[in-house]
Parts: sequence; C-alpha cells; structure tokens
Amino acid sequence: MIILNGGSSSGKSGIVRCLQAVLPDPWLAFGCDSFVDALPARMRASDEGIVFAADGGVSVGAEFRALDAAWAKGVATMARSGARVVIDDVFLGGAASQRRWQEAVGDLDVLWVGVRCERAVAEGREIARGDRVVGMAASQAEAVHQGVRYDLEVDTTHTESLVCARAIAARVR
Amino acid sequence: MIILNGGSSSGKSGIVRCLQAVLPDPWLAFGCDSFVDALPARMRASDEGIVFAADGGVSVGAEFRALDAAWAKGVATMARSGARVVIDDVFLGGAASQRRWQEAVGDLDVLWVGVRCERAVAEGREIARGDRVVGMAASQAEAVHQGVRYDLEVDTTHTESLVCARAIAARVR
Amino acid sequence: MIILNGGSSSGKSGIVRCLQAVLPDPWLAFGCDSFVDALPARMRASDEGIVFAADGGVSVGAEFRALDAAWAKGVATMARSGARVVIDDVFLGGAASQRRWQEAVGDLDVLWVGVRCERAVAEGREIARGDRVVGMAASQAEAVHQGVRYDLEVDTTHTESLVCARAIAARVR
Amino acid sequence: MIILNGGSSSGKSGIVRCLQAVLPDPWLAFGCDSFVDALPARMRASDEGIVFAADGGVSVGAEFRALDAAWAKGVATMARSGARVVIDDVFLGGAASQRRWQEAVGDLDVLWVGVRCERAVAEGREIARGDRVVGMAASQAEAVHQGVRYDLEVDTTHTESLVCARAIAARVR
Repeated sequence: MIILNGGSSSGKSGIVRCLQAVLPDPWLAFGCDSFVDALPARMRASDEGIVFAADGGVSVGAEFRALDAAWAKGVATMARSGARVVIDDVFLGGAASQRRWQEAVGDLDVLWVGVRCERAVAEGREIARGDRVVGMAASQAEAVHQGVRYDLEVDTTHTESLVCARAIAARVR
Repeated sequence: MIILNGGSSSGKSGIVRCLQAVLPDPWLAFGCDSFVDALPARMRASDEGIVFAADGGVSVGAEFRALDAAWAKGVATMARSGARVVIDDVFLGGAASQRRWQEAVGDLDVLWVGVRCERAVAEGREIARGDRVVGMAASQAEAVHQGVRYDLEVDTTHTESLVCARAIAARVR
Repeated sequence: MIILNGGSSSGKSGIVRCLQAVLPDPWLAFGCDSFVDALPARMRASDEGIVFAADGGVSVGAEFRALDAAWAKGVATMARSGARVVIDDVFLGGAASQRRWQEAVGDLDVLWVGVRCERAVAEGREIARGDRVVGMAASQAEAVHQGVRYDLEVDTTHTESLVCARAIAARVR
Repeated sequence: MIILNGGSSSGKSGIVRCLQAVLPDPWLAFGCDSFVDALPARMRASDEGIVFAADGGVSVGAEFRALDAAWAKGVATMARSGARVVIDDVFLGGAASQRRWQEAVGDLDVLWVGVRCERAVAEGREIARGDRVVGMAASQAEAVHQGVRYDLEVDTTHTESLVCARAIAARVR
C-alpha cells in the first residue's frame, strides 16, 4: 500500500496515474476525491459533512469523520485481500490524520509519501485547472505536512509527475 | 447495505443519487463505475482487465476479477465498520456475480434490488446520455438478471428514479 | 437551425444527442451550458456574470448579456456558413430571450421547439442527475415558456428523449 | 482575439484558464475540444469526422473540415460583435491550418501564440492527465508548429501556465 499526502493542487492525482502506468503490477487508486464523490450530495455542503468555504478553507464534521474512518478500514481490507492500493489524501489534520490511517492499516506494509509543492506554484496550478475553489492550494500547502512522517518526499514544484512517480516506484518492492 | 443490479443505462446511478437524498441517514455510494475508475488506465482496455467491445460486449480478465473480489471485501468492511453503503453493479455473470457478493458480505444484512428497464427504452437512454458504447444497454438488459434473487425489483421503463428510490427506501429499516 | 428551449432538467441535452444520432446529416450542438463553460471562472459567480443562487434562482448581469448576444450572432454565422446547428437554451427572459435569438438569426430558417416537463418530474430528475443546484428545475419549469412561440412542442414527462427527437427530426427537411 | 496553437498536452487549456483569470476584461474561450464536443457522437470515430488512432495519430475527414470552417467563421463573428475571444487549437495541418484561421478572421486583430513543450515532458503529462490516447503528445509536439508564424511563443516545459499567461496578457492592449 502507498499513501500519498499533499495539499490541493500539489499534483497528487497526476503522480497516482503515472504510478499506475509505471508499476508493473496493477494498483487500485482511491483518494479523498473519490471518497467525497461517494457521499450524499447534501453532505458536500453541510456542517456534518464537508464544507468548502469561499476562501479555500475546508472543514469536516462528525458524520464525515465517522464515514471516513469506515472507508479507510475498508480500503485496508482491500489491501489485505491481495489488492495493491495507492491512496492520495489531504491530511487536513496533519499528524492526527496520519494516525487515523495508521489505525486503519494496522500491520500492513505502507510506503508513506509526502507530495510537496511551493505555495505560489500550487496556487497558479489551481487557477490553471479551473475546477477548484481558489484558496485551497494556499491554505493547505504547508499545513497538511505538519508533524507527518514520510518514507519519501517528492516535490512537484520543478519536477514532473512522471519523474516523481518513478522515484516512488523505485521504493516499491 | 443495499446492492442494486441492473444493465447499463437502466438508471441505477440516478436511483442511487435519489436514495442518498431521500434516506435520512448518510449512505456512501460505490459501484462498478467507481471501481473501473480506480483501475490503471491500461487495464481499461486489456484482456487481463476489462474490454468494452465496439458492439457493446464487455469482458473481464483474471486480474480484473481478483481486484474486484478484494474491492468487494473492502466495501463489506466499510459496512461492518458502521458506514451505510449502497452499491450499484452490473452482474455480468448473473447468479455467479451475486454469489461473489454473498461471499464478500457474509452475514451482513443486505437488501438486494433488481433494476429493470425494457431493452428498447434502455437503448434510447444510452443514445441520450452519449457517454457509453452503444450496444451495452441491449446486451445487458436481460442477461444480468439471470438466476439472481432479489428482495425487491424496480422498473425504470415507466417509473422515475425518485419514485423507484422511495420504494427502495421504504424497505430500509 | 433548430432552437430548443426548456427549463433545467427538462431533458434538452438528451434530446439533442438523440437528434444528432437520428438526423442523417451532421449537426453541431451548442447551448447555454457550452456558453457558460466558455466564460471566465470568475463570471460564473458574479453580479456582472451569472449567479446560481442556493434556491435555484439564476440571474445574469450586463456583461453576460453582451457576451451572450455576440455568441448568438456567431452561432448564426456558423449556420449561414453551411453548418447545421442545434441549440439548447433556457429562455430565462421568456419571450424577450426569443427575440434576442430572432435578431441574431435574422432570415435564417429556424425550427423553434419547446421542451416541456412537468415540474414535479423535472425536480425528481434534478435530484437523480446530482450535478445541478436543486431548485432550478422548479423555478424554470413554466417561466421559460411564457410568451414564447414554437413550431413544435415536446413533453418529456412521459415520452423518452429518442421519441421526442424523432418527432423533431420529422419536421426537418 | 488570441489564437493559441500547440500539440496535445502542451498546456494550452491551463494557459487559457489563467489568461481568463489575469486579463481584466472577460474573454470567451473556445477551442478544438469544445468543437469536437459539439459534433455528433458518430463523427468522433468516423472517416468523415475525426479519428483518434490507437497510436495517437489523429486524422480528419471532409465533413469535419467543412464544419470546422463554418465554426471558425462563427467564432470570428463573435469577436466582430464585441466579444473578446481566446482560441486554443491544434494545427494538425501546420501552416495550412493557420491560413484557414486567417481566412476566417479576415482583418480582425489577432495575437498568434505558439505553445511549445518538449516532447518527452508532454508525453509524461499525457500519462499524468490520463484522459487522452497515449501517443498524441509525441506525434503533435513539433508537427503542429511547422511553417506557422507567431507574434509570441511560450514554452511550458519549465514555465508554469500562469507565468506563460502573464507573458501573453502583457501583449494584449
């Protein structure tokens, strides 16, 4: 199992697709985006669910956290059942978010990867992609890494997704 | 847990979104589409993965089936961990596909729902949505239901998604 | 040239795709959705652009109207230059919106089509599609038809998109 | 009017969204992608329309070219009617494609911009985005620029979309 953590517009999804292309075995890819898509529409804008504020702030409620914990346990079961799984997530809670994953995965072998991108560059990419609330990239760029421990860090500021993916793939047995 | 089975363009996704809207508790929605999205791009057109033929036929290989089985076990774990989960799937193997789910869910409480739609109507909706290989609706309309046992069946031919969803919701405790 | 007018979730886009499938000649399809996609992101939520209120109301500003008028003239030029063009639009201003199109198309031969759908059914389909602000279907269902004159009206409440498309195609020389 | 030309995955769309964000006036954005979306589904895979070969090659037929010419004239009319318009296109025919646009725009004031990206980098980004036939980036990287004359060229290989957009915006009066 590989778990990538990085702020919005840091380039996680591109790295995941490249990882799926360069790794010889098939890997399933899930992440915070696919989890949010699985929620009822009303939870995507409610205090109990997830709220994307106009300034780019993101906050989540108790129901979101409960479903998220169940989801993480399910993903761990997929890995335990023989599927290779790569996750891209945004650790809004920093070290606390990592602990939540550690509880879910237990003794599974996990490669922890930090995906960094300079704040100003991530902000520009957020404008270029055009499908995110402007401000998320800036507010998450550093916060999501606080207190998190990684096996490997990549930085997309000056390095292409495919090159980052190859560096990660080299660490996968 | 609710598991919906029906052919392509029978209206499963619309029913799922309506279910998420009418059920008072939050339900996570997953399905064959989100599973296929999680696969490496190369498996979406390979003999080991899933092949969408030009005539609408769909065939899956050994690797697809192995990942699919792991995925189903993971989804069952989510339900066992407290999340309400609704699945929309296409039982390409009919009764055999149902057995695969039965093994994954074990003694979990599942509401099995068949989603039917007359072949000619599903074919028209396939043209109207415009994002599917034409022919899938016709080839799956009846085949996916062969030998499958349901707690409830709905038919979208003359009934709106929201009305079907309310009938299903009435069966959820 | 064919111009369809109907409220949100009345089924216009599905009819357009079916029209493109059943008409023997190739027709280009444009509409209010593709126009809004062409706007700068900031105009999709500004008083000068277009505002989608939380209750489903939609209002447009002066800049939106100016660009919209230029766009309609351009689309008319495509038709005058030999392309067959089908438009799906939402006449937020009713008869006034039709006059704007009449000015743009001049003496071009246009088939005016009203796409109706009972309010309650359109509201259900809005929930089922899941990608629109809930409330648009209800607020537009009747308002967009006020004072508008059609060559043909179709009603998707009980009639499939493909059947509606065939009725329209029968009126195209 | 601004016309950008560059190969697939060279970063045109990102530059366009950044241009719309940094230019003070509202600009409408159209391009080869929105044109192809306007075609009947059957033309997206036919000899008379446009064919995306498995090796990344793209070929277009007579009907495609006729509709494309009418579309370009319509876009020019939008600009003549007061709308600022930015186009991103792929000049599959190199200099011949530019001449087609020159005929359509006539004496309109156009800023011609070449968007370059080193072939290997564009190939990597094609994998990272995951929604294009692999091979298009490589086959178009240099070919689309042959014989084309620009007012300005940008290169996304080592320069972010937003920075390229600012360089272009500086040339707009």
